[in-house]
Amino acid sequence: MSKTLSKLGEFGLIAQIRERFPAPDGVTGIGDDCAILPPAYSKDTLVSTDMLVEGTHFLLKDIAPYDLGWKSAAVNLSDIAAMGGKPTGTFLSLALPARLDATWMEEFLHGYGDLCKQFDTPLLGGDTTASPDRICINVTVLGECPTRFAKKRSDAKIGDLICVTGSLGDSAGGLKAILKGVKRDADVQKLIDRHYRPTPRVAEGLELRLNLGVHAMMDISDGLGSDLQHILDASDVGAEIDLVALPLSLALKHVCQSQGWDPLQLAVSGGEDYELLFTCTPQAEAMICVPHFVIGRITKRSPVQPGMTLTGPGIVWRGASPSFADSIGKSGGFDHFKKK
Amino acid sequence: MSKTLSKLGEFGLIAQIRERFPAPDGVTGIGDDCAILPPAYSKDTLVSTDMLVEGTHFLLKDIAPYDLGWKSAAVNLSDIAAMGGKPTGTFLSLALPARLDATWMEEFLHGYGDLCKQFDTPLLGGDTTASPDRICINVTVLGECPTRFAKKRSDAKIGDLICVTGSLGDSAGGLKAILKGVKRDADVQKLIDRHYRPTPRVAEGLELRLNLGVHAMMDISDGLGSDLQHILDASDVGAEIDLVALPLSLALKHVCQSQGWDPLQLAVSGGEDYELLFTCTPQAEAMICVPHFVIGRITKRSPVQPGMTLTGPGIVWRGASPSFADSIGKSGGFDHFKKK
Repeated sequence: MSKTLSKLGEFGLIAQIRERFPAPDGVTGIGDDCAILPPAYSKDTLVSTDMLVEGTHFLLKDIAPYDLGWKSAAVNLSDIAAMGGKPTGTFLSLALPARLDATWMEEFLHGYGDLCKQFDTPLLGGDTTASPDRICINVTVLGECPTRFAKKRSDAKIGDLICVTGSLGDSAGGLKAILKGVKRDADVQKLIDRHYRPTPRVAEGLELRLNLGVHAMMDISDGLGSDLQHILDASDVGAEIDLVALPLSLALKHVCQSQGWDPLQLAVSGGEDYELLFTCTPQAEAMICVPHFVIGRITKRSPVQPGMTLTGPGIVWRGASPSFADSIGKSGGFDHFKKK
Repeated sequence: MSKTLSKLGEFGLIAQIRERFPAPDGVTGIGDDCAILPPAYSKDTLVSTDMLVEGTHFLLKDIAPYDLGWKSAAVNLSDIAAMGGKPTGTFLSLALPARLDATWMEEFLHGYGDLCKQFDTPLLGGDTTASPDRICINVTVLGECPTRFAKKRSDAKIGDLICVTGSLGDSAGGLKAILKGVKRDADVQKLIDRHYRPTPRVAEGLELRLNLGVHAMMDISDGLGSDLQHILDASDVGAEIDLVALPLSLALKHVCQSQGWDPLQLAVSGGEDYELLFTCTPQAEAMICVPHFVIGRITKRSPVQPGMTLTGPGIVWRGASPSFADSIGKSGGFDHFKKK
């Protein structure tokens, strides 16, 4: 099978998707004007959407279609995880050049499906259309959460501990290795795998949602520095981060050592780790059963003091070297419209 | 104000969108990982999504940004109308070239907002990202409908009348006039307006949903011929359409007469009218208060008989001239991956 999409046809592709992704009982999925989801009593509906554009988010020559499918689903489910929700369905829009190979598409759907299956999340609809050249992917994900229990960015309290659910910087290290063409030993491959096949922390989010002492939560997609800033701005608080407490994987340490990269810089400014970042009371922290690392605490929004390294308003980085402070200060939040 | 998006920045654009589209009370809109919608008791959630790609769905030089914004929202709300639902929120993903003018974006949001305001539908989230060249727009719309009352494509019954809520072919006539550079007199302009600023039949859909004798319903986006076929396939029935009963606007008749175009061909094969197509019992039809036109009836799925004009399985076109039969037979359903 090596025909192009133009031979398969739009209806052929839709039939293929429909067969691969049956709707669960009681839900109307692909095939009508809308999907229909039954009411979930006492549950809020969570909705998030993400767009991935060829040439901006990925290069066709670099990423395997399976991985692209996986990642397209994963980054969206991660947004549901970030609220402590359970994903209930995804919607996949695809703009595809007609010359695209049908086996590429098959592999993409395979990766997308494998990630969704892992979190028991059906594909309930979408749109397929032609693109003159580049692939554009948009995923919308729906989730549910008991009413008023979603963890928002705006609920951080002074005195809260700041925690993350796993190691930081791996994905950015993997991307850097790809871009620089670093030879792929086992450690490098681990980082690249985290970049291409991130795991949305859905189970962890559900567990953390049950803990009432967990206050603010979000997922780390743009990087610790810029994502934490969103919590601080929404909650009107400050933060102190202890750089030596940042969880770094052995693989990242090894690769950084051999390449002469700064792992802290990757951990703070690199995005796409999709770990959960949350704040909680010290008492609540003692009750948390999922893996997590305490990396700092929520403070009043404080003015700069001597010996502190500040980026944006409100984050103090404890233990920063002058070169780190310099690189962190320059990077700031990720802005898609600006060139770095 | 004539700065580019790269000067405005992603966060500047998001701030602009957030200010223009406040979330209604009780709903968390733009600004967290997900939007949060409260439970709607005894109501199903309807979801649909549509992608519009520059070069496939529109040309920047032809369409005004206001109209593009309007249409992006309208075609999505139309899918909610097609189920008899009430739209409750939209999610807008935008991939934009950094060179794009900020005033273009402003106008786009203006058109998008005006259409949504007309149907009291908030913008609750989305994604903004850079595109290397072309604009790509994805809208996801959520709606609600009392549980099990959504009008599906699969509910047409033999003996039902087939109806549409308004004139057909105007949008296709408008598009043809644009592509052929026809001089824009008042009639031509009317058709072009219907092409660029379609009205989703939300109010009509809500009214029709209350009528239990209305069975199958959908909106006409690809064209009567191919959309009716979806109802027939989903319901396993056939149809007879009386071509002289198709509602044609005076504007379309005038323009077709002066240009030598066949209005029936546009009405049957042309898409994007966004009128509702529905089937109902004759008794129910007598009770319908919204404007509508009876254009045929649902039959058993019948084999071809002498004197009948058939396209696809199951549609008999009564009153078709041989040339119409020929053109209709060739056009069939719209397939984005195939060139016409």
